[in-house]
Amino acid sequence: MRLSHMVSERTKDVPQGANVKSHILLVRAGYIKQVSNGIYTLLPPAQRISQKIQKIIREEMDKVGGQEVLFPVVMPREMWDKSGRYSSIGEEMVRFKDRAGRDMLLGMTHEEAAVHACQNIIKSYDQLPFMIYQIQTKFRDEARPRAGLIRVKEFTMKDAYSFHTSYEDLEKYYNEVFEAYNRIYTRIGMKNFISVKSDSGMMGGSYAHEFHLLTDIGEDSIVICPHCDARANMEVANSVYEMPKFEDSPLKEVFTGKAKTIEEVCEFLKVKPNQTMKAVCYAIVGDDKRTVVAFVRGDKEINEAKLKKAVGAEVAVKDLEGSDLVKGNIGPVGLKGKNLTIVFDNSLKNLCGLVCGANKDEYHLTGVNMARDIKPENYVDISKVNEGELCPHCGKPLTIKRGIEIGNIFQLGTKYTKSMGMTVHMPDGSLINPIMGCYGIGVGRSLASIAEESADDKGLNWPMAIAPWQIYLCPLRNDDENVAKVAEQLYKSLSQNFEVIYDDRKVSAGVKLTDSELMGIPIRVVVSPRSLSENQAEITIRSTGEKIMIALTDLENKLKELCKID
Amino acid sequence: MRLSHMVSERTKDVPQGANVKSHILLVRAGYIKQVSNGIYTLLPPAQRISQKIQKIIREEMDKVGGQEVLFPVVMPREMWDKSGRYSSIGEEMVRFKDRAGRDMLLGMTHEEAAVHACQNIIKSYDQLPFMIYQIQTKFRDEARPRAGLIRVKEFTMKDAYSFHTSYEDLEKYYNEVFEAYNRIYTRIGMKNFISVKSDSGMMGGSYAHEFHLLTDIGEDSIVICPHCDARANMEVANSVYEMPKFEDSPLKEVFTGKAKTIEEVCEFLKVKPNQTMKAVCYAIVGDDKRTVVAFVRGDKEINEAKLKKAVGAEVAVKDLEGSDLVKGNIGPVGLKGKNLTIVFDNSLKNLCGLVCGANKDEYHLTGVNMARDIKPENYVDISKVNEGELCPHCGKPLTIKRGIEIGNIFQLGTKYTKSMGMTVHMPDGSLINPIMGCYGIGVGRSLASIAEESADDKGLNWPMAIAPWQIYLCPLRNDDENVAKVAEQLYKSLSQNFEVIYDDRKVSAGVKLTDSELMGIPIRVVVSPRSLSENQAEITIRSTGEKIMIALTDLENKLKELCKID
Repeated sequence: MRLSHMVSERTKDVPQGANVKSHILLVRAGYIKQVSNGIYTLLPPAQRISQKIQKIIREEMDKVGGQEVLFPVVMPREMWDKSGRYSSIGEEMVRFKDRAGRDMLLGMTHEEAAVHACQNIIKSYDQLPFMIYQIQTKFRDEARPRAGLIRVKEFTMKDAYSFHTSYEDLEKYYNEVFEAYNRIYTRIGMKNFISVKSDSGMMGGSYAHEFHLLTDIGEDSIVICPHCDARANMEVANSVYEMPKFEDSPLKEVFTGKAKTIEEVCEFLKVKPNQTMKAVCYAIVGDDKRTVVAFVRGDKEINEAKLKKAVGAEVAVKDLEGSDLVKGNIGPVGLKGKNLTIVFDNSLKNLCGLVCGANKDEYHLTGVNMARDIKPENYVDISKVNEGELCPHCGKPLTIKRGIEIGNIFQLGTKYTKSMGMTVHMPDGSLINPIMGCYGIGVGRSLASIAEESADDKGLNWPMAIAPWQIYLCPLRNDDENVAKVAEQLYKSLSQNFEVIYDDRKVSAGVKLTDSELMGIPIRVVVSPRSLSENQAEITIRSTGEKIMIALTDLENKLKELCKID
Repeated sequence: MRLSHMVSERTKDVPQGANVKSHILLVRAGYIKQVSNGIYTLLPPAQRISQKIQKIIREEMDKVGGQEVLFPVVMPREMWDKSGRYSSIGEEMVRFKDRAGRDMLLGMTHEEAAVHACQNIIKSYDQLPFMIYQIQTKFRDEARPRAGLIRVKEFTMKDAYSFHTSYEDLEKYYNEVFEAYNRIYTRIGMKNFISVKSDSGMMGGSYAHEFHLLTDIGEDSIVICPHCDARANMEVANSVYEMPKFEDSPLKEVFTGKAKTIEEVCEFLKVKPNQTMKAVCYAIVGDDKRTVVAFVRGDKEINEAKLKKAVGAEVAVKDLEGSDLVKGNIGPVGLKGKNLTIVFDNSLKNLCGLVCGANKDEYHLTGVNMARDIKPENYVDISKVNEGELCPHCGKPLTIKRGIEIGNIFQLGTKYTKSMGMTVHMPDGSLINPIMGCYGIGVGRSLASIAEESADDKGLNWPMAIAPWQIYLCPLRNDDENVAKVAEQLYKSLSQNFEVIYDDRKVSAGVKLTDSELMGIPIRVVVSPRSLSENQAEITIRSTGEKIMIALTDLENKLKELCKID
């Protein structure tokens, strides 16, 4: 392709509000263009990468027996009423009425469509196991799109669904897909990715893994044991931690004035955070009246995913404006109020000598004894793991890293086959609901994650396997007749065996060299009056900066070697 | 792939309401499954064909310099307000509000997105011409989906957009794409396709071609001159036809009783249809009050596409219930009424001795003289071409055929670049709006059209180039140990070089042979106890029924020859 005519422009302008490397560079290098908040057009270089990632995904899905299908983007309400998700999914799902007034929706996931496709076709145990997958556009009306292609509203996704007659069979297949995912990420050139145990969330399953690219810009916290390699998303991570012992003392109300936060109270009373109790108040989504008051030790934080499970409902941090609760002085002793759900974290179990709010402005209690003064019915795990707490498997200290979720796999169970009434005959004549697994990879997010991981201060830096082009053919001074002639010849001959982007623009050497680096094409071939005077070209390897002067007659063979083409 | 585990079922059941061959067979052979009215899941065999068609389309688009991009399915209203199409397109476009209350829509075409993508990137004449294309899901809320994949609401489409600095350049490129389209249809194995001049409709252009598969189930009428090969869609077709001469006579009101239709009036008055005048009444869409009364000679029909252009608005046949017009007796003489727009077809020009309604129940007029009794300001062409009328180019009789529109190409002009404000600098420093062409192919409709064209009474019958599999490996009596063993070996070895669907089911020979024909796989390889007793397999060519007995040792070479693999 000739760069002069490509619909893609390199610019120095950083998109407004962008602070993530991949976002900035994909825009600056002319890979993507925003159409609306969280909605992008993929310009030619990005679409080329997307196609290469899709090809690798297809090959690996086919290798584990996947059958490619195509489900619709627009689906009717009825199908989603069966699973209950038409009502249970919130505003992130787009719903509309068609011209006949029927309720329709835009798919953000396709479990219902997968069961619908197989239902009444797969009827007998000996047709299982099997897996169907698609690569298709999905739309999820994200409240907060961010970071370019990392979190968008519209995206291309590979989603796969497997069907089994037993959990053993699902587990066996799940492990095969797990390995296929490892191969996919390796083949598309991702380096620092890991798999972690995760919460299966709204997918309704029981056992799940996420794949993450470890990076500081990740939205997820990953708890990792460097010793035994146990890994889990913070949402489901457990740890073993020390329970401090404080001296038992009588309950006492003390003046703390304007000290409200744990930090301020600790400073005021000269205690450490682990001797205090923190209250965080939540609303239950869809129930305006009820308030959840979650208590956790002052040195720990609430894990909302765990809290949600503990109360069995969606929760959102509550604005206490206008309530009876005294912000900054809430405590469990004598806490009364209609419609309160009170939850205590394990970190408070049987402690004494604690500090907590007195439910009275400017006052806290000291000497709080859980067993004596509060007597909770039970304690539950609703706190986040802190760095340095101990691995529940091996007892060694845990570390916490940030990750971008680049894929996930779930053991779904029978939620969808049961609710939609899909059954298969077993050898003994009985009917069962097949057990499902589901497996997703976001194509655009994978692209952006690799950009994020591989980019350097000069720009993007694509792995050979997914680079939009292998070679950036870069004549310097192509106003020179000989340079122009040789460059045109090289473009024609190299295009036979390589993917070549040809910088045929009449711009300065500086612009060309900078653009080639910004675009991140793995190999740059420069011809210039100087190199041609010695019948040579200059090869530069983008990832290492290594330069190789090579005779024009040897160029093609050298490039084959560098591109690993036999 | 093993047929036993494939999500695809062969059935004898004809889908309810289906009367089109491709629809019936694609469902019966397990290629597609309906999710909702006009919305389908492509099961594995159909998705394989779709991918092959897409690959051929990509290759041909790349050959004419196309740059692949991906536009979003969901777009914001603002972009479509600029072109005016947010308001001008009717209910077939899905509109919805996102969670923030912004107006969004589902793309049914992407001119606006294409201009948006190029705007501010392409700034100078020397970056043109270029073409961008995508293969993406589109949604059009069709009022009457029909015939399986022929007319659906959701479909995969290749749409392409080219940009030029002059009409000459557009025309040159347009012709290149025209040839690329011919190559695409030829390569995907379509035989009876033609290109025709067409109306550019809501696309807003001035010059356009459609590609049609000629078939009796087509929704479009194509006017063809067998002599000079001129071709046009009925919507824009012209002809030369005889103007009859009737004796001039005085205007006279005659009783015609219950005779209302042209046929009834001709019978009653003993005249031929070409001596009568027909009135058809239309509403203007979006204007409840106005009525268009279109008059045409009794032997001809109204062409609504032409009428629409003549009145400059969308029209729809009007229900006369409650109006002053006398249904079945409407005539132009003395026709009065508020808000009437009266249009006369060329076929009536200066005729005399005609019969028309008297605007009075049970009465018609005879002896109507256009020039004397009506004096129309002008006549326009609002009628359809009749079979046998003469070619305007060569004067020979025209024929009319039915076609399915399988693609279209338009010279769009500057409608979108102008309304969206896209400009490029010309060499003289002036700014122009680039001139656009646009080029569409429906992938699913192409698939269904080939099914329609190639199927026979045994079932589908795919051309090799797009067949989901090349070979249907069909062991008969695979309860026989030797048959099963050889079949498994053949499956493994043939899969190295061919795409093989392996009928490993334990069902009768009859079911297998029938299914292989229904599915339309080009080559069937049968092994059975009998063939193996002679170390042979039986090859059957689906399209011809030809059978070849071949030694197992020669099988692979014979298959390579038949599949044209070197």
